[in-house]
Amino acid sequence: MDVSYVNPFVVSTIETLQKMLNIEGKAGKLSLKDSSLHSYDVTGVIGLTGEAAGSICLSFPQEVAFKAVTALLGMPVTMMGDEVTDGIGELVNIVAGNAKQYLTKYNLSISLPKVVVGRNHSVASMSGVPTIVVPIVSSLGEFAMEISLKTPEVKK
Amino acid sequence: MDVSYVNPFVVSTIETLQKMLNIEGKAGKLSLKDSSLHSYDVTGVIGLTGEAAGSICLSFPQEVAFKAVTALLGMPVTMMGDEVTDGIGELVNIVAGNAKQYLTKYNLSISLPKVVVGRNHSVASMSGVPTIVVPIVSSLGEFAMEISLKTPEVKK
Repeated sequence: MDVSYVNPFVVSTIETLQKMLNIEGKAGKLSLKDSSLHSYDVTGVIGLTGEAAGSICLSFPQEVAFKAVTALLGMPVTMMGDEVTDGIGELVNIVAGNAKQYLTKYNLSISLPKVVVGRNHSVASMSGVPTIVVPIVSSLGEFAMEISLKTPEVKK
Repeated sequence: MDVSYVNPFVVSTIETLQKMLNIEGKAGKLSLKDSSLHSYDVTGVIGLTGEAAGSICLSFPQEVAFKAVTALLGMPVTMMGDEVTDGIGELVNIVAGNAKQYLTKYNLSISLPKVVVGRNHSVASMSGVPTIVVPIVSSLGEFAMEISLKTPEVKK
């Protein structure tokens, strides 16, 4: 399995934290996702198309999402609402947009973000499409960057 | 607002019900989504890119998702698991794939589906990106097709 595409998304996530939130983040240990093990409260998801196809998600516990949007907007956000969904959507959009610059070989296009809100939801990929989970550790708390990409190398 | 792109997705959803599930479905009254009003248990989402960008969702109450996957697989499915997420992902993939044939002017590409599972989750678009909700009424029960598409006509 070629997972060279993962690092650009990790780098882009760390850079986005720095530039947009003024927060230092670190990537934890990557793992191949077992869908039954991960649940979140707020998830920004964006589709990827091109020579490879898939999606990335930024998935947060509610309190970490509030802190991220508070840092993004520079004003306290403590309730679910448009500020949170717009803020998390903007973050996943920037992460995907930056990452595709490092992945020109796949000629990626990105869809518009959607933001899922719901206590303890999970997000599955189709069977056979591997999802890599990267925990991102920061002063906001921990959240997850998940990347699923079907590259030409693994297409049947 | 140009919403001529909505009908191909409605037609494709009805056709997919017929062809894949052998179920007759009808579209209810379209509405512009107010994100606070809609929550679901299982949602298949797929990104769209091209001359327009956005996403479509098929969103189900849990029991309707089970019935849809039961009809798709021809075997009873009564618990959440890979059958359900793979089945709902396959349906949204087919709906998007069929619809794009009717929308050649946008030269759409579709990402891989993701499937959200979680009681009473909601799915928001960014502010400023209208989402059209189409209730689909069938013998399975009612579910929703939601389409968000930013077309060149409405791009700033």
